[in-house]
Amino acid sequence: MAVKHFAKEGLESLVAQLAAGMGVPGEDAALFAEVLVDADLHGVSTHGVSRLNIYLKRIDAGLIDPKAALTVDRQTGSIVALDAGNGLGQIQARKALDMLMPLARANGVAAATIRNSQHFGALSWYCNHAASRKMVLLAMTNCEPAMSPEGGYEAFFGTNPIAASFPTGKGFPVKIDLATSTVARGNIIAAQKKGAAIPEGWALDREGKPTTDAAEALLGTVLTMAGHKGYALALMVELFSGVLSGSAIGSGVGSMYKNLDRKQDVGHFFCLFDIGAFLDYGDYLRRMDSTIDRIKSQKKRPGVEEILVPGERSARRAGTNAAEGIPLPDETVAELKQWCSRLNVAFDTLEALG
Amino acid sequence: MAVKHFAKEGLESLVAQLAAGMGVPGEDAALFAEVLVDADLHGVSTHGVSRLNIYLKRIDAGLIDPKAALTVDRQTGSIVALDAGNGLGQIQARKALDMLMPLARANGVAAATIRNSQHFGALSWYCNHAASRKMVLLAMTNCEPAMSPEGGYEAFFGTNPIAASFPTGKGFPVKIDLATSTVARGNIIAAQKKGAAIPEGWALDREGKPTTDAAEALLGTVLTMAGHKGYALALMVELFSGVLSGSAIGSGVGSMYKNLDRKQDVGHFFCLFDIGAFLDYGDYLRRMDSTIDRIKSQKKRPGVEEILVPGERSARRAGTNAAEGIPLPDETVAELKQWCSRLNVAFDTLEALG
Repeated sequence: MAVKHFAKEGLESLVAQLAAGMGVPGEDAALFAEVLVDADLHGVSTHGVSRLNIYLKRIDAGLIDPKAALTVDRQTGSIVALDAGNGLGQIQARKALDMLMPLARANGVAAATIRNSQHFGALSWYCNHAASRKMVLLAMTNCEPAMSPEGGYEAFFGTNPIAASFPTGKGFPVKIDLATSTVARGNIIAAQKKGAAIPEGWALDREGKPTTDAAEALLGTVLTMAGHKGYALALMVELFSGVLSGSAIGSGVGSMYKNLDRKQDVGHFFCLFDIGAFLDYGDYLRRMDSTIDRIKSQKKRPGVEEILVPGERSARRAGTNAAEGIPLPDETVAELKQWCSRLNVAFDTLEALG
Repeated sequence: MAVKHFAKEGLESLVAQLAAGMGVPGEDAALFAEVLVDADLHGVSTHGVSRLNIYLKRIDAGLIDPKAALTVDRQTGSIVALDAGNGLGQIQARKALDMLMPLARANGVAAATIRNSQHFGALSWYCNHAASRKMVLLAMTNCEPAMSPEGGYEAFFGTNPIAASFPTGKGFPVKIDLATSTVARGNIIAAQKKGAAIPEGWALDREGKPTTDAAEALLGTVLTMAGHKGYALALMVELFSGVLSGSAIGSGVGSMYKNLDRKQDVGHFFCLFDIGAFLDYGDYLRRMDSTIDRIKSQKKRPGVEEILVPGERSARRAGTNAAEGIPLPDETVAELKQWCSRLNVAFDTLEALG
């Protein structure tokens, strides 16, 4: 598919104007746009501007409240249990993280659950933000059903991701960010579009049998990574972000694309650690950087050119995209133009770089 | 291998007497014995009494300090950075957990790093203990090198496990407890003893090439589970429990069996959450139990008799072993007898149940 490249600032401005056009208050619209475009900047285009269309559609259908306040259900010491008020996940998660910062600074650690939320984009923005404040963030979220528990074959868990990031002195944070599924559902959709088979171990069909047929897989369930271990981790994510938060749980979570008649009610979990509470920050950086050096200087397996640390590739991509522009496929550009037209926002202020 | 069964209480008493015989103070010896025997009780015999021999040998060689105090390097709010003083991991980890309990009760969350420790047995004891106090424990530890980062082939990470447990109203806690390796090294050793091949995807040989030869695999490295995802999680465990704690990192961690000339310097990480800080405990239990019910009543894959929740199988095993006695292989019984003989402890007070 053809792509065009756009400058980060212009794209953020356009996304913010469109969100504001659908009723998101100005400051919140800017927060939202920054997180959305940041995903594209880091190469996670599945969680970036390509999702704007469905977010705006859901606001339009009354399924997301663009003006929702973030309210505190309960606060005890360093714990805040939050209600996102069915607002945009990116905005509410950012505000939650802002609430945790002073608590973590005071007590060394703080945690939040957030219920009644939506898909909140790529976990990486929150992680990188924490790392830039000399903190470690552990983040999880439940999401719309895609995977079954080991032994079952009904979609129950989302691809329930877990993420954590750690600042370094290397110019990029170490960023662990992984779905607990074998593979993203997007890869199966891509195989189906190409008429290609999928590898064994990716998915089950509607009757719970292993399949390599992409179309059958899309009617069935995606497998958890590493079998029962991925099941256990997906459950851990569900318990922290769903059961503890008061959000919907498992198959009760609404689908962003399929359920155009009800809210998602996603739950998130954040735990923020102040590194300086554990050890001197300078010592920490020396220990971290030496760990990275030791990993990267390992003997390489046959055919491997470079050993990468998690987060390194996406940081490089962000550098490239900052310099050359953020690539958007024509389909996403066409969606942006439609919303611009509807909301009387000038698209032509967004100049394609190539 | 032939096994004999022993009552839990008798085994705990014997293990405590042997530890005390090697200089562990009486109360600490009882703590240690309880954790060690609990692993066998729950069917994790690789982390139970079969390890007593090497612990005592290492005390004898001056590589573990049986009388070590647990000291506080730093405390900030809900964070304690601890020095295990090269004491037995089980004892120091229990004491660390006891320190966290009131902090978590007061602030909703508390975390500890523990450096200068040893192998501390099965994570499940700590997790179950927290669950019995209406708390959720997230636990990690680094351990002796076995796995390489994705793309490399030198042993760097241990099989770096991650665990969490959650109380339920079902008579057992949900217990997530997994190594981030494809398989435990013990499975490869077992294959070698039988002269059997190992499946593809378990290990690399000394040159970083995939192998199905168990002997070659033991000279090489175990693969991380789910490739780069397991690498990312193993790194996360190393950063929380190694880098943040001040312990040895990666290949710097000593091997319990191979390095009989230096200490292990293992690092642990605990984060304890008070469930009542997030939501009413009654609500929590209802949400948790209904989640378990929904998972267990899923349609089952062909050939599957029952869908289990993590922790369920080990709880059943504990019930069986409590009733029928804890099985110990003759090899372990012989080791116990040798230590009894050396330390003038009466073995014959330990009655075999069958």
